Amino acid sequence: MGDTNISAVLLEKGNLKLEERPIPKPGKNEVQIAMHSVGICGSDVHYWVHGAIGDFVVRAPMILGHEASGTVSEVGEGVTHLKVGDRVAIEPGVPCRFCDYCKGGRYNLCHEMQFCATPPVDGSLARYYVHAADFCYKLPDHVSYEEGALLEPLSVGVHACRRAGVTIGSKVLVCGAGPIGLVCLLVAKAMGAAQVAITDIDTKRLEVAKQMGADFPVHVTTRDGREVADQVVRTLGCNPDVTVECSGAEPSVQTGIFATKSGGVLVLVGLGPPTINIPIVNAAVREVDIRGIFRYANCYPTALSMVASGQVNVKPLVTHRFSLEQTLEAFEASKKGEGIKVMIHCDKNKA
Amino acid sequence: MGDTNISAVLLEKGNLKLEERPIPKPGKNEVQIAMHSVGICGSDVHYWVHGAIGDFVVRAPMILGHEASGTVSEVGEGVTHLKVGDRVAIEPGVPCRFCDYCKGGRYNLCHEMQFCATPPVDGSLARYYVHAADFCYKLPDHVSYEEGALLEPLSVGVHACRRAGVTIGSKVLVCGAGPIGLVCLLVAKAMGAAQVAITDIDTKRLEVAKQMGADFPVHVTTRDGREVADQVVRTLGCNPDVTVECSGAEPSVQTGIFATKSGGVLVLVGLGPPTINIPIVNAAVREVDIRGIFRYANCYPTALSMVASGQVNVKPLVTHRFSLEQTLEAFEASKKGEGIKVMIHCDKNKA
Amino acid sequence: MGDTNISAVLLEKGNLKLEERPIPKPGKNEVQIAMHSVGICGSDVHYWVHGAIGDFVVRAPMILGHEASGTVSEVGEGVTHLKVGDRVAIEPGVPCRFCDYCKGGRYNLCHEMQFCATPPVDGSLARYYVHAADFCYKLPDHVSYEEGALLEPLSVGVHACRRAGVTIGSKVLVCGAGPIGLVCLLVAKAMGAAQVAITDIDTKRLEVAKQMGADFPVHVTTRDGREVADQVVRTLGCNPDVTVECSGAEPSVQTGIFATKSGGVLVLVGLGPPTINIPIVNAAVREVDIRGIFRYANCYPTALSMVASGQVNVKPLVTHRFSLEQTLEAFEASKKGEGIKVMIHCDKNKA
Amino acid sequence: MGDTNISAVLLEKGNLKLEERPIPKPGKNEVQIAMHSVGICGSDVHYWVHGAIGDFVVRAPMILGHEASGTVSEVGEGVTHLKVGDRVAIEPGVPCRFCDYCKGGRYNLCHEMQFCATPPVDGSLARYYVHAADFCYKLPDHVSYEEGALLEPLSVGVHACRRAGVTIGSKVLVCGAGPIGLVCLLVAKAMGAAQVAITDIDTKRLEVAKQMGADFPVHVTTRDGREVADQVVRTLGCNPDVTVECSGAEPSVQTGIFATKSGGVLVLVGLGPPTINIPIVNAAVREVDIRGIFRYANCYPTALSMVASGQVNVKPLVTHRFSLEQTLEAFEASKKGEGIKVMIHCDKNKA
Repeated sequence: MGDTNISAVLLEKGNLKLEERPIPKPGKNEVQIAMHSVGICGSDVHYWVHGAIGDFVVRAPMILGHEASGTVSEVGEGVTHLKVGDRVAIEPGVPCRFCDYCKGGRYNLCHEMQFCATPPVDGSLARYYVHAADFCYKLPDHVSYEEGALLEPLSVGVHACRRAGVTIGSKVLVCGAGPIGLVCLLVAKAMGAAQVAITDIDTKRLEVAKQMGADFPVHVTTRDGREVADQVVRTLGCNPDVTVECSGAEPSVQTGIFATKSGGVLVLVGLGPPTINIPIVNAAVREVDIRGIFRYANCYPTALSMVASGQVNVKPLVTHRFSLEQTLEAFEASKKGEGIKVMIHCDKNKA
Repeated sequence: MGDTNISAVLLEKGNLKLEERPIPKPGKNEVQIAMHSVGICGSDVHYWVHGAIGDFVVRAPMILGHEASGTVSEVGEGVTHLKVGDRVAIEPGVPCRFCDYCKGGRYNLCHEMQFCATPPVDGSLARYYVHAADFCYKLPDHVSYEEGALLEPLSVGVHACRRAGVTIGSKVLVCGAGPIGLVCLLVAKAMGAAQVAITDIDTKRLEVAKQMGADFPVHVTTRDGREVADQVVRTLGCNPDVTVECSGAEPSVQTGIFATKSGGVLVLVGLGPPTINIPIVNAAVREVDIRGIFRYANCYPTALSMVASGQVNVKPLVTHRFSLEQTLEAFEASKKGEGIKVMIHCDKNKA
Repeated sequence: MGDTNISAVLLEKGNLKLEERPIPKPGKNEVQIAMHSVGICGSDVHYWVHGAIGDFVVRAPMILGHEASGTVSEVGEGVTHLKVGDRVAIEPGVPCRFCDYCKGGRYNLCHEMQFCATPPVDGSLARYYVHAADFCYKLPDHVSYEEGALLEPLSVGVHACRRAGVTIGSKVLVCGAGPIGLVCLLVAKAMGAAQVAITDIDTKRLEVAKQMGADFPVHVTTRDGREVADQVVRTLGCNPDVTVECSGAEPSVQTGIFATKSGGVLVLVGLGPPTINIPIVNAAVREVDIRGIFRYANCYPTALSMVASGQVNVKPLVTHRFSLEQTLEAFEASKKGEGIKVMIHCDKNKA
Repeated sequence: MGDTNISAVLLEKGNLKLEERPIPKPGKNEVQIAMHSVGICGSDVHYWVHGAIGDFVVRAPMILGHEASGTVSEVGEGVTHLKVGDRVAIEPGVPCRFCDYCKGGRYNLCHEMQFCATPPVDGSLARYYVHAADFCYKLPDHVSYEEGALLEPLSVGVHACRRAGVTIGSKVLVCGAGPIGLVCLLVAKAMGAAQVAITDIDTKRLEVAKQMGADFPVHVTTRDGREVADQVVRTLGCNPDVTVECSGAEPSVQTGIFATKSGGVLVLVGLGPPTINIPIVNAAVREVDIRGIFRYANCYPTALSMVASGQVNVKPLVTHRFSLEQTLEAFEASKKGEGIKVMIHCDKNKA
């Protein structure tokens, strides 16, 4: 290969550096991937800025990046469904395969999960990366590398909307019009939602949401959750069947409860303070179910087939592009919150 | 009102006549409807030609018609959500509201169901008709009477696809490209199906299916169910997750079993001979679930919101139009199987 | 009938009196019932003492009582499944039968629900009472009136355990060993729960719970929810799959979240303060679903068949008995919280 | 170890012999087990007598046995939850862990499943056997080796009753009172079934079923499926909610359809001829779902906790016992169909 392996290493809180790392070799049932597109996620920026998310603390240098795609450059023993040259999207978490969660179809809850760029596991923002072959999904020719990388946030949307039970005719409220709110919007529409209202405090984000298919943008100007709920109900003409909360903000969670119709579902995607005030009696006696999500399980194939069949168009999500060498600039841009999704191109001849 | 109530009465097998009937008055919780559009269903034609469907036998004169819409012309006591002049779609079955099925959300299985044009219950192919108000759904201005009438077959599609568990990314096989096969196709796509293959022995029907969104029309030229299954799998590139069988033909049910992937679902919508040969071990050991449907429950609101929001376009289904006075011609046209859906306009000044 | 109709009327907060009321006549689809056993529920006492529960305020005199059974004494028009002399349990809520909730199988969420002794609807603590016939369930000879009355709290347990998804092999935590906690315990065991731990601050209640089948009584001596969760996990040897919270207390809800295993369910049965602090991130990222319940739907037939088949024994729940004439004493006893369930016998020759 | 490894090898159809085989060594994540109890299943006998079951043909010598338990005698690399001396039940099928079925929680449908004594995979009827450690379940002290071996058929019952949706208050019909019918009976009762009717053509089997808790034994004396259905309904006093068919006989499957109540479920456990006549319209229009089962997934832990907690008592199932050296006698006894379950004890000092 005679190549180098530039990698974006978070040495410690605030200290992100490009370093040369050895090119990893694929073991049994693994593939080596020449990385192409890696999207920056809020969590990448959070680890960089804060050095931790909840109980996950960066205690040793860690390569960042987990929204990724590339080209298979070497194939390990036992791999039959992929070959060198295949373009693949990488599902970043590999579970233990042995526990009850893994056997029961909820491998996202596996206690031994190895997830890219969740300490202490290295991510994929590098020239070369090795991954479990069965968590690499071959992209059809007409699906781009960037779309492949975007399957990661899209899978979050798939998992959230599945857990919410979105279906044909659903009236849906999405709280928060950031990248995750937008993918939830896209997935909800693709699942047959009749109307989607979306809230945000930022009118520019709402404008983007509208362009991506939101029926009712709702501008939030108060921290009174019930008031926003009333606003949503007035706008939508009814209580939403389902609310997908993507901000994590306390008032927004409260909005989700007050707005959702009796017997409906509130899904919590966004994470905020560990403990918040919840109008629990309102939720309980109206049987509004509250369900969190943790990443996703069995969603990549669905996300891929949605993109491949044209049911969802994720391309407009990418607003900024950088080369691997420009990683720091890319993180600065992402931190500023401009645009929606910042994409880093890791291949050698790209900027 | 000073009006007459021309009604399409099936006097006995083979004898369909227009008769004057008294204009019915709405009772408590009922509305009187000045009928507008009534679609002819295969079952209407079947009662006319054969005088019976299974155990349901026409023993006394019965008004036909159950795919219907019209304008509220009088409102009974206790009705608050509708007023004179409202345009409505009519869900044709009214259950007892007292039994376990009604209380449990599966009112389509109610043993006391009163269903339009299922003997001995009169249908709605007349100038005026009275119905339970809560089974009349107000149409938004931009939804036409014909679309309102088409909510009936569309609800069959909604119920079938729900029972099948169609969802985003599903690969779906629809067997039979008649009117019900087409609505199942439309609903499956609206629910997020990634690809839909559809079979028929008639290439003209397949052409229509393609125009309405089918990804893979499959021309059936054999009665060997396994051969057609292989053909479907080759065409689709995989086994379908879900098969919706709309023909009722024995070989087609067999195709459904052989084609559907392990762990998938075969929904039986079409009805054929009462007893057929089923490759039951194949279905059982691959855990392909076999689920029938009987009409629908809780589907009209969904069907209406899908049409209202533009998620499905049912307009192309209507290929023939007649006035109430031309009812016999309309039935002749429907019997010949030309086109897809024959619509009768019951209002006075229409042809 | 030549009879009087002594009724237990809550005139206003704090003022409960026995009054003569006219004997009501059954209308269409109704039956008149000579009342036999009426259990006192915490909500009856709460209306008496506080005059209101949440938004439900006693603004006019209201007869109390909703856990009830009796003998059919007159049959209204259209009633076919019951006759004079039949012994029946009375499901106390009658929904509108017309709305989407009623049609969809969740009639407990019906906005027009008429529920006994929820203002302004009269209850059944009287000599005679009239009710919708289809919400009266005929008792087999070997099921007593008291057991019939106890189907009401038992139905709460059925609804709670169904919503929780209790099934064979489940490890279950019940929080609170009052009457509702005890019925949840009974139902969980009958559904096949392998082990049930139950918490309370009162050791006498825990003793009763143990006698009724609880595997692990857990004495709560702290308001630190996490500490109690740890205690439960140590006692049970694992995290419970399901927690059924019956106290409504904030620390106990917190215990429910911390204790329940990832991917499990916390059902909220008990109601406390309208808004409480919830460790929401812990619940969300571990996908612990939070589900409230509101009364029950389609649970009476199940509760009855459980009692009739001997799967659950509710008899030990009744610890105090009074005659209708002793209603005030009965309420005083119930208010003191002695014993478990206070039962009032409404028939003439009983004390 | 200095030991020999006597193994029960099916050399070819009809030719079952005890042979010395090398003692296998555990690989990574595997354990070696000194076998104790191995139950003989109908499929073991079928391979012996017919050399094949459907597409599975014995083409090379294969060790029989898959209902098994033993003692861990050596631990492979990476195994942490088991140690030498642990008594374990062995779930006999090990899936690939990589495919969509494995990841989705339905590993029983994995195309690469390695299942004991399904050709060409060796079974466990031997002195020593090596198995994936995570499919070995540690038995509590009070659970016997025989009970451990019986977790296999019990898991079939758990999977069948889960797929059937048996729950509290269910009225259940079990068709066939052989070993699998009996475990389905036990599981249905443990899941809260209110009444279980069970059919058989053999009155002695029905007698056993009654002793094991069947409420209504139904003696089948006709091949007319509808007649038996009527008999069941009369006996049970209603249509069963759920039918679990364990015979595979055509008339019995027909009974299952005719008997099951509208909206209910028929689960096919028994396998008979590959294709049979099904009254499909009856099933379809009454929405009686037909679901097969293939072995089980995620059922062993449940089965174990049911046995450990005393919810089911499987001990009476074992009617015959032999030593490993008496394997041929054991198979002869099993083939004659005497008793219920024949158990072989593989440990050295046992007969």
